[in-house]
Amino acid sequence: MTAKVSGAIEYARQHGARFLDELFEMLRIPSVGADPAFAADTRRNAEWLAAHLAALGLDKACVMETAGHPVVYGEWLGAGPDKPTVLIYGHYDVVPAVMEDGWDTPPFEPVVKDGKIYARGATDDKGQLFIHVKALEAYLKTSGGAPVNVKILLEGEEEVSSPNLVPWIREHQDLIQADVCVISDSSMRVVEEPAITHSLRGMTYLEVEVQGPREDLHSGFWGGATHNPALALVEILAKLYNADGTIAVPGFYDDVVPLTDAERAMLAKVSLTEEQFMAATGVPAVWGDANYTIRERVSARPTLDINGLWSGYAGPGPKTIIPVRAGCKISSRLVGNQDAHKIYELIKKAIEAATPPTVKVEVRLITTGKPALIPFDLPEMQAASRAYARGWGYAPLFTRGGGSIPIVAELADLLKIPVVMMGYGLDTDGLHSPNEHYRIDMFHRGIETAIVYLDELAQLPA
Amino acid sequence: MTAKVSGAIEYARQHGARFLDELFEMLRIPSVGADPAFAADTRRNAEWLAAHLAALGLDKACVMETAGHPVVYGEWLGAGPDKPTVLIYGHYDVVPAVMEDGWDTPPFEPVVKDGKIYARGATDDKGQLFIHVKALEAYLKTSGGAPVNVKILLEGEEEVSSPNLVPWIREHQDLIQADVCVISDSSMRVVEEPAITHSLRGMTYLEVEVQGPREDLHSGFWGGATHNPALALVEILAKLYNADGTIAVPGFYDDVVPLTDAERAMLAKVSLTEEQFMAATGVPAVWGDANYTIRERVSARPTLDINGLWSGYAGPGPKTIIPVRAGCKISSRLVGNQDAHKIYELIKKAIEAATPPTVKVEVRLITTGKPALIPFDLPEMQAASRAYARGWGYAPLFTRGGGSIPIVAELADLLKIPVVMMGYGLDTDGLHSPNEHYRIDMFHRGIETAIVYLDELAQLPA
Repeated sequence: MTAKVSGAIEYARQHGARFLDELFEMLRIPSVGADPAFAADTRRNAEWLAAHLAALGLDKACVMETAGHPVVYGEWLGAGPDKPTVLIYGHYDVVPAVMEDGWDTPPFEPVVKDGKIYARGATDDKGQLFIHVKALEAYLKTSGGAPVNVKILLEGEEEVSSPNLVPWIREHQDLIQADVCVISDSSMRVVEEPAITHSLRGMTYLEVEVQGPREDLHSGFWGGATHNPALALVEILAKLYNADGTIAVPGFYDDVVPLTDAERAMLAKVSLTEEQFMAATGVPAVWGDANYTIRERVSARPTLDINGLWSGYAGPGPKTIIPVRAGCKISSRLVGNQDAHKIYELIKKAIEAATPPTVKVEVRLITTGKPALIPFDLPEMQAASRAYARGWGYAPLFTRGGGSIPIVAELADLLKIPVVMMGYGLDTDGLHSPNEHYRIDMFHRGIETAIVYLDELAQLPA
Repeated sequence: MTAKVSGAIEYARQHGARFLDELFEMLRIPSVGADPAFAADTRRNAEWLAAHLAALGLDKACVMETAGHPVVYGEWLGAGPDKPTVLIYGHYDVVPAVMEDGWDTPPFEPVVKDGKIYARGATDDKGQLFIHVKALEAYLKTSGGAPVNVKILLEGEEEVSSPNLVPWIREHQDLIQADVCVISDSSMRVVEEPAITHSLRGMTYLEVEVQGPREDLHSGFWGGATHNPALALVEILAKLYNADGTIAVPGFYDDVVPLTDAERAMLAKVSLTEEQFMAATGVPAVWGDANYTIRERVSARPTLDINGLWSGYAGPGPKTIIPVRAGCKISSRLVGNQDAHKIYELIKKAIEAATPPTVKVEVRLITTGKPALIPFDLPEMQAASRAYARGWGYAPLFTRGGGSIPIVAELADLLKIPVVMMGYGLDTDGLHSPNEHYRIDMFHRGIETAIVYLDELAQLPA
């Protein structure tokens, strides 16, 4: 370990208590981006961060406007043009939190209990984004600079799917261009098994509506010669799936990059048994494509889920109608190299082909998100692996996340750089839930890993 | 025409406007019997009717308790023991109605447009039951009495299949015993072709709920290995039907009495072409068992309809969940000799057999009703035919109704009397639909026919 690195780590250890105080200050700002009632607080969080970055000596530290909540930017390019540049992405907005949801303590008054910080945003993502800020501070305050150039980009709309960030990035591509992007907004199963997420699923979300008669009909007068729209929808939806749980939409799997043996071996390292799955979800039995393990099904394979279904009467007692229409929401989780818009067209075509002349159907696209797949043999990924081994104390696994963070694929595609997802949270931190928390030791361990990662990046061949 | 009859008709014509005002008063009471939120209004409707009957001079006019919504009773027995007694049955409860369903005007604020009354209950059944009340009033206010004895029985649970009326009838059989029962709760195709319904379909109404996980799941973290309950429900429901529109529940058709050639010839008298069906309902094409005519399918054949369907998120935009559960309401219209409880067991068994071990299913019986068949050569039926010819102006057809009024079979069975269904509505009145309406001229014409029918009954040999 170089003196530069050990000096920064030493500094981080000495100043750990202050780092926590600062994090608490930010956690007290209720930056609930989705709720207009908290718009001023959300902006206040952005201003707090920009001021913090400026105070650390970063250049261009400022709040930058978007069509929604602002972006915070700051950079330190003192390593010089011969050294790589790392773009650190994080988000300062949080999901809503009120006591009534079941919090034991007020969500925006952080408290420490059993070595954990309880507060909304503690792990998602204020605690994790702050790790990088403090790692950079540790370098700047000891050896006078980091081993690589650092650009920090923090947004305020991640929890509402970053609607204004892509336009902002297109406008500021030169400003934020880098060699690698690192994001800490994910989690690991246990401390001893840190995880680098190298894949996220994309998404195609659509709505289907079937209409039969022009209004609800009396099922006695018209039943028997009217194709019930709820039945028609049921028949259409049933045709989108095969009996074995696979998806019957023609062409659906065409662009799926097959899992390699190495990837399957990597996925197998994170156990997810039938018993674990049933205990976690409460389902009476596990389901899905038997050609893949449970872990593969929920992370490396595409899905087609019905998220909502509606037709006719759902109140108490009987109502004997043939409903005028029936509808559903459907979302498909995508994997590399599936294209969200192409998948939408395939599903739409399959639905229209399955629709009989006795009803009319309308298919509407709601939203899309690109899947992300970052090969884990890239030097920047392997550097992250070494950083965990050195800074965290345990070598990481490369995992696939089943969820979707569309901005990951957007960053990778727009900047044409690898995005390294170094999660410093635990799967059990309760993000988006009441009593979200973050372990203090993981905060400190994360700072040391982030310090080491910048050093590892500096040693990569240009 | 006797002076008694023509006097009553003259009175009805003179007081027609007031009759309508009174009907409007009742239509303003939202007596949605199925919805507990409207329990007080439903009772208020019963009290309004009892007060109305008392004011007309009926004896024993009162609200009588049942285990559910009350019964309204009143009688006039002034014709004496040598004259027959007619029991008039109707119902003051209505099916749910809210603007969001597509009403052009508030469902409980009756308005007149193009000679039609728009309001929930206008044709089903407040407008039709009121015809008999006003026919009796016309006699009482002119010649001092009706040609036959009249008992009026109005219930508040017809739209939920009269769960408490049969026990009430058993307890009050002496009170309501009569020689014939007349019910106006049905309809005709066109004014020139009035109809006496001599057959009704029965009903089995059930609810199905499928549960998978213990709560909504994140579709990204768990999608691919969780059997989506909405999909499971879709798959189960799809298995209940054959591709040709027939019902795939094993044993479902076993007890259906085949239609004779004579019955098919009778049914063929009331034309129902593909074009007429499409125009009346708005469906893009007619559906169903091609072995039967459209008229047969909607009146003389059993059905299985999905009346409601629900699961997960139905609000705006996306929500990426695997819903905890999915449910539906299903009703089956039955014909002789299908037994409603046996059919329930068959459907339940088919659903359970179609349910995979990946989800749990619960099937609940909501209500049942017997099918009814009244021979049309009975004197009371022929008297009704003459009443239409004299009072309405057109001789009627004897038809099969596709709907269900389970109490018809119960009244016929318990009191051992013919039940004569003299409908005064139009097939296109939109009962149970948004913008239910009733033609004002049919209301007045109905009153005159009802006046004549009492006279026809008086002339039947004892």
